[in-house]
Amino acid sequence: MQNRFAEDTAMSSYTHVLLATDFNEETIEVVQRARSIADQNKSTLSVIHVIEPISIAYAGEFPVDLGDIHRELEKQANLRLNQLAKELSIPEAQCFLEIGLTEKEILRVADEESIDLIVVGSHNKHGLSLLLGSTANAILHHAPCDVLAIRVPKISK
Amino acid sequence: MQNRFAEDTAMSSYTHVLLATDFNEETIEVVQRARSIADQNKSTLSVIHVIEPISIAYAGEFPVDLGDIHRELEKQANLRLNQLAKELSIPEAQCFLEIGLTEKEILRVADEESIDLIVVGSHNKHGLSLLLGSTANAILHHAPCDVLAIRVPKISK
Repeated sequence: MQNRFAEDTAMSSYTHVLLATDFNEETIEVVQRARSIADQNKSTLSVIHVIEPISIAYAGEFPVDLGDIHRELEKQANLRLNQLAKELSIPEAQCFLEIGLTEKEILRVADEESIDLIVVGSHNKHGLSLLLGSTANAILHHAPCDVLAIRVPKISK
Repeated sequence: MQNRFAEDTAMSSYTHVLLATDFNEETIEVVQRARSIADQNKSTLSVIHVIEPISIAYAGEFPVDLGDIHRELEKQANLRLNQLAKELSIPEAQCFLEIGLTEKEILRVADEESIDLIVVGSHNKHGLSLLLGSTANAILHHAPCDVLAIRVPKISK
């Protein structure tokens, strides 16, 4: 057979898609796309948000209770994740709120949940650039699966 | 309407997909996937290969004619690109053999051709890691469109 590429179209279907989000306002398009890709592939959609621990350096020199700040961050993140999961019809078991280094947690969950596509937003000014900045190479090079970076349009103010 | 994500499934369709390849043996899966994605989206598929100019440092201290080497590289790359294009049923106008910095040429062609998805392979040991190594961040951050990095399985020897 001359065309060795004609046969396998099933290779591009995914069974478990992981949306990594930082809840930036600009993620709406990314979220829609992740839902759409999962639907098209009839695959499970999971969502992950990673809270990076605040170091003493961030808190400055005056005495603050980092424990309280972390609990508050976690509470707020949890609310937003639940809201997003509800809108995406994602059950609780497919929602991952993790604390740690973004890339490490995304890759750990991707591995443990047998994810075959990680979806992230890409933006060169705000928001999701945090996710795709220093961690982009790590995710790309160490991800056990495909990675789709969705271009988020700039919001002009 | 409660679910703001239910309506727009058309957002995930692409009209012009650009496959960036370095002709590594491991690209077969990436090539198949690019063809499959283009077919599923009924989109145009283009392919790009970038030849990075060899500097004097690579050529060492003995006198060599870099012009000859470049012409030979270009000739060989052209043959492989034609072969790949034939197998993928890509017309000549959609084949881009460029000379320059990989990221710069990919982004230039993506912009000029109104590409909405760049497909690259990712591998952490050989081959396409060259494409995704130092140039990964640049492509992700400056690409005018989505980028799909396809995980290429390691070849054990």
